[in-house]
Amino acid sequence: MGRLALTLSYDGSRFAGSQVQPGVRTVQGELEPALGALFDRATTAVFAGRTDRGVHASGQVVGCDDGRPDLAPEVIAAALNARLPDDLAVVRVERRGAKFHARFDAAWREYRYRFWAGPPAPLARGQVWHRRRGLDVAAMAGAGESLLGTHDFASFAGDGEGVPWSARRGRPRGTVRTVLGWEVVELDPWWGAPSSGGTLIELRIAADGFLPRMVRNLAGALVEVGGGRRRPDWI
Amino acid sequence: MGRLALTLSYDGSRFAGSQVQPGVRTVQGELEPALGALFDRATTAVFAGRTDRGVHASGQVVGCDDGRPDLAPEVIAAALNARLPDDLAVVRVERRGAKFHARFDAAWREYRYRFWAGPPAPLARGQVWHRRRGLDVAAMAGAGESLLGTHDFASFAGDGEGVPWSARRGRPRGTVRTVLGWEVVELDPWWGAPSSGGTLIELRIAADGFLPRMVRNLAGALVEVGGGRRRPDWI
Repeated sequence: MGRLALTLSYDGSRFAGSQVQPGVRTVQGELEPALGALFDRATTAVFAGRTDRGVHASGQVVGCDDGRPDLAPEVIAAALNARLPDDLAVVRVERRGAKFHARFDAAWREYRYRFWAGPPAPLARGQVWHRRRGLDVAAMAGAGESLLGTHDFASFAGDGEGVPWSARRGRPRGTVRTVLGWEVVELDPWWGAPSSGGTLIELRIAADGFLPRMVRNLAGALVEVGGGRRRPDWI
Repeated sequence: MGRLALTLSYDGSRFAGSQVQPGVRTVQGELEPALGALFDRATTAVFAGRTDRGVHASGQVVGCDDGRPDLAPEVIAAALNARLPDDLAVVRVERRGAKFHARFDAAWREYRYRFWAGPPAPLARGQVWHRRRGLDVAAMAGAGESLLGTHDFASFAGDGEGVPWSARRGRPRGTVRTVLGWEVVELDPWWGAPSSGGTLIELRIAADGFLPRMVRNLAGALVEVGGGRRRPDWI
């Protein structure tokens, strides 16, 4: 049977993360019933990357069996969107071969983290980390240089979660990961902040995989540097 | 007594408009108690422009008496924000003379309307008008040319609302308004829409005043043109 690659976008505010957990609302928990109803059979969704509570996605890739090879990809997307809640959508559907596995086949993943240093921003709440004090963009960009390449990221991992989820098939990688890209850029505040000042900074980090909480911990370390409490080489 | 000019930002999703109405949640209804508590006296907030249910603001100016001339403007802003809900914030406070009136003194107002033609966008819901079909940006921009200047906008006004709120002090203007600027621009989708296609279009319209529902009706007419159902000169 062929496989499908679904590209998802979701607002993570009201999800307790991407992966099914009993008793809470999750992305997988909303998606699989929609797939099951459309395909008329229980269908498992394999996520390329896990996201935690409150984390959004604009290009999460999910693999599943192609239960309706008779339908065009756009029709499958529309049919799924008709069944999904308004904070979760399928933005693209592509056909893949029978061996496609969204998690194992992902060569890299990219996370973005947004920091807003300025007055309160009600129109961006849940989408930026708000800080009152300014951030030093150049120092933040410089801090990432030492992270590029292959390193043991154990000190940036969350604790008590056992074997990292991104261990490859049959080959646990422990806590070593390769950071492929690191960028800190300034964006225009999309919600409009006329003459009230403020700086919107986006951290973009791409790696072959991430340990649990690694992105959040890196972002926290970056703010220490950006706020002037740590030197860029401390990271 | 001196006056204050407060610049507000709010997410209109959960407000039944800007102006106090009995039994519903409004921006004024949240702001005035915060002013009253800080100044220890009932304080009226005068809005430069009214906004309807679901309309956001990034630079709404509000005037009120300066109940604490002893405090710095930044301190007043912080004290008010500590009392306001998370979908409403004071982004700036400035001192003005005793005759300042936010509504009568406003020389112009600017509204923005965003259209997204592309796949569903959960991260932008409530902030864009989502349409599946594409829009012709050039046709939309051209359609606005005939609106510039002073015209009778009665055909774009809502009905049954009596005298337009923006009538100047003692000089009702009826339904004649002057459109000072009209712009249709394409923006980058801030929520990230990787390779999934789509166009984000922003209508910016500035005028000395707007009739009830005028912006919404103009936006609707613009979509008729952008979608190819009407010619640009129809508007």
